Order: sequence, then C-alpha cells, then structure tokens
Amino acid sequence: MTRATLIEQIRLKQSYLCVGLDTDPRSVPPFLQSFQDPVFEFNKKIIDATRAHCVAYKINTAFYEVSGAAGWETMQKTADYIPSTHFKIADAKRGDIGNTSSLYARAFFETLSFDAVTVAPYMGEDSIRPFLEYTGKWTILLGLTSNSGAADFELQAHQDGLLYESVLRKASQWGTIENLMFVIGATQAGWFTRIRAITPDYFYLVPGVGAQGGSLKEISGQALNRDVGLLVNASRAVIYAGTGEDFAERAGAVAAGYAAEMAGYLNKHASVS
Amino acid sequence: MTRATLIEQIRLKQSYLCVGLDTDPRSVPPFLQSFQDPVFEFNKKIIDATRAHCVAYKINTAFYEVSGAAGWETMQKTADYIPSTHFKIADAKRGDIGNTSSLYARAFFETLSFDAVTVAPYMGEDSIRPFLEYTGKWTILLGLTSNSGAADFELQAHQDGLLYESVLRKASQWGTIENLMFVIGATQAGWFTRIRAITPDYFYLVPGVGAQGGSLKEISGQALNRDVGLLVNASRAVIYAGTGEDFAERAGAVAAGYAAEMAGYLNKHASVS
Repeated sequence: MTRATLIEQIRLKQSYLCVGLDTDPRSVPPFLQSFQDPVFEFNKKIIDATRAHCVAYKINTAFYEVSGAAGWETMQKTADYIPSTHFKIADAKRGDIGNTSSLYARAFFETLSFDAVTVAPYMGEDSIRPFLEYTGKWTILLGLTSNSGAADFELQAHQDGLLYESVLRKASQWGTIENLMFVIGATQAGWFTRIRAITPDYFYLVPGVGAQGGSLKEISGQALNRDVGLLVNASRAVIYAGTGEDFAERAGAVAAGYAAEMAGYLNKHASVS
Repeated sequence: MTRATLIEQIRLKQSYLCVGLDTDPRSVPPFLQSFQDPVFEFNKKIIDATRAHCVAYKINTAFYEVSGAAGWETMQKTADYIPSTHFKIADAKRGDIGNTSSLYARAFFETLSFDAVTVAPYMGEDSIRPFLEYTGKWTILLGLTSNSGAADFELQAHQDGLLYESVLRKASQWGTIENLMFVIGATQAGWFTRIRAITPDYFYLVPGVGAQGGSLKEISGQALNRDVGLLVNASRAVIYAGTGEDFAERAGAVAAGYAAEMAGYLNKHASVS
C-alpha cells in the first residue's frame, strides 16, 4: 500500500486507528472453542466488526508462534482475511544480518501478504536494508517503545543525543517517508514534540493506547502532521472489550468510539494548521 | 540443558562447535527435492553426519519462516530430531514488551523444545526477563554482531563506553552465567580481550566462522576461559560443503576438521592456564 493510499483511507474514514490482533488462544470466548481454529474465528468476527472504524490491522507474531506451526497457519489465514483496503502490519520485531533479513522480508512480504513489518534497529543498516528494498512495502522501525525497559538503552545518552534519537536520525537517511515508519511508544507522550522535530514527515505507529495507558488526546495533539502521520494501535482494549457472545459487537463499539475521537482531532488539527 | 552438562559435553567431544542449520530450501540438493519435506531430509542427514563433532545446533528461524507455516513445521521436526545430548538454539532474535516476550519464550521453550533462544536487547530488561525466568533454559543476547551494521549503533559511544558494552554490563546484572550467554561476532576478533574483561565467566555464541570470515584460531586464543566459555558456529561452511549425494559426508568432514582444530586450542588453553 502506498503512502497516498494510506492517507486517502484515513481521510475517508476519519480514523487513524490500527486494531491489534494480539489474540491469546486462551482468551477466545468459550463458545468459539469448538471451532477447528478458534483464534481464526475470533479474528474474523473482530475484523468484520471493526473494519469500518480502522485503517490498519496489526498481527503480533508472538501470539501465533506460541501455537507453533498451527499458529503460523492461523496468522496466514488472518492476514489473507484482512481486506485489501486496510494496511496489514506484521508486528514481528525481526532483524538480523543482511542475508537473513532478506529472508524475513520475503517471509512477511511475499509468503505472507503483509504491507509492513516491525523491525528492531540494534544491528544497524544492513539488517534493515532488505526490508526497505520492497516497493510498496513498509519497514516500521522501533524508535521509542512504551515499556519500562526503554529506560535501559533507548533513553540513554548515545553519541550526541539519546539512542532512540540516533536511530531516528540515521534510519531516516536509509529510508524515506514512502517506505519507513517508526514505532513510538505512547506512554512517553511528552516526547512527541521532540520526536516530530527530528522526523517531521514520517508516519508513527503508536502501540500503546488503551491497556498500555497512553492518552489518545495528548498523542494526537503533539504528533499529527499535515499528512496525518499517525497510526494509533489498540489491541486488548478493542478485542477484549467483551467476553460473551457479543464480544465482536462490543469490540466494534470501542473501535467506533476511538474513531469518533480521532475524527475530532483530525478536524481540530485541520483547522489550526 | 545446564551449564555443567554443556561443559561436560564439550570436554567429552573436545569440541565447542555449533552447526547452524540455516537451510535455504533452494539450496537443498536436487536428489532430495522429491521428498515430502526436502529441508527436513537435508537437516536429518546433516545432523547424523555432524553430531559426533559438535555440541550444539542452531536453527535460524528466518530460513524456515520464508516457507510460512510449512517452514515452522519443518523447524519443529528438526528441533525434535536434534539429540538431547546437543544444545538446541533457536536463532530467532526476538524481543518485545514483557507480556509478548513471555509468549515468545513459551513458543521456543515449551511449544518447541529449544534450550536457548537469541534475543535482541534494544527494548531493555522487561523484554528479556521472561526468557531468563525459565530454569534450565538460556537467553543468548545480542552483544556485538558480525555484520557491517554493527558500526551504526553497537559500536557507537553510549553512556560511558560503547552501546554493546553497556548491553553486556547491564544484562550480566539481569541474568547469570547459568541462564545467559552473549552473541559476539567473530569478524571483530580484536575486541575479544576487551569483551572478556567485562564478562569473564559468560559463554559466547560466536556466529561468524567460515563463510562470514572469522578466524577460529584468533577467537579461541582470546575468548576461551577456564570453563571453555565458547560456542563457535559454522553454518554454510559445513552444511554446503558439498552439493552432490555425498553432501552430508562432506559436511561431516568439515565439522570434524573444525573439531580437531578446537581440540588443539582446548589442549593449548589447558596447558597455559
């Protein structure tokens, strides 16, 4: 999916919501457990109920790998089920030496039909380059994450700034706004102004709204740019909104609520900029 | 596998060789392509031919994920085929927020039967902690890697040293020599003396001998410690030693050659220390 198409979808729906399909096999409602693939049944219903309110879906590979090869099968089926109007993210946090990263890129962009994959920056340029080489595909590089461990390395002094700032600066020389985004954790909302100064035109994937505690208002106020530049993810807050037979309906309602809030921020941003 | 058992196996075989099963489906010899799972047939023959000369096998997940769910099936079968006398490493380079890393740990330590998994340090302590919590299992954390991209972040000034040194110092407070090792890239052999000073008792997984160009002699001279403290991996140099029907025999011969060289370094190290 191109940047222009993504922005068009966001404008059309007045939403920059990404729904995270972090589906824990143990959390699928009991009435779905008799299906041959309960996680896939759950995901289909969540997608059907939320697709009008979001522009992206993010599949966290860990939740599927815990079931081994069968989990990968479920991940493939889920990726195929996501409508082509939606931006499909593999939240895989891969990264290895060049020839190995090439295989990860093939795995997620060719074998599976994802538009984007999250990548860890530690190993540097040649570990990221193979992902960037695909036309129409996206690398979403870890910048500043939302967990407590961000304080251990990401937020420590590095060269002439902090490590995550060095990642943003260097990587934005390797990729472009057409093939590279950054993961920016929502619990550090106070940092967005500084981060926008380094990477004004890049899209950010903000993973921490809802269960992880980020404030959508604060993030949107600081991070929206003239091309929106923002995908905000909610996983547990949406997919586990209900636990009964109406779980999908409830997920849809929560997603609709986020989208309505986002429409307000988009309007406000358009009127001030 | 415990540290004592690993050291015992190394002493018994006089080898600290790890064979990397980085099996590219396109590189499996033609005569195996008629099998239902050519990669698994290839791996079985490589394992049978090399097991007497090595103490560990490393499966690089990228080479399997490129085939999707079927590749994960092959990875599971291969992991199950590796003898219990051998240390089984998933070279997966995972790492995510705590609850997600817990699922990766379950995937590789429980769903699959690996003894160890490689983990990326960027996201800090809580992304690594869930792997460390398993008794008898190992976290192999990226320290200094062998690729050119190591110069981008790992080898840059960070706090009061270099980034990879900070990773070694902090992580060796989180784990112990019984559950944590470090990946140290072989093409940087000149650095081993400095690295041993920071982490004298830890095991290192050195991934770069053979096709990646590290010198086994130099590495062994600088990095062996009183408990050996070293696993040296060779992938392509062993598994692609031959391309004909005798490929496994040739792989075995190359592995035996590395082991003989290692026996010499172990003897030499024992006599000087």
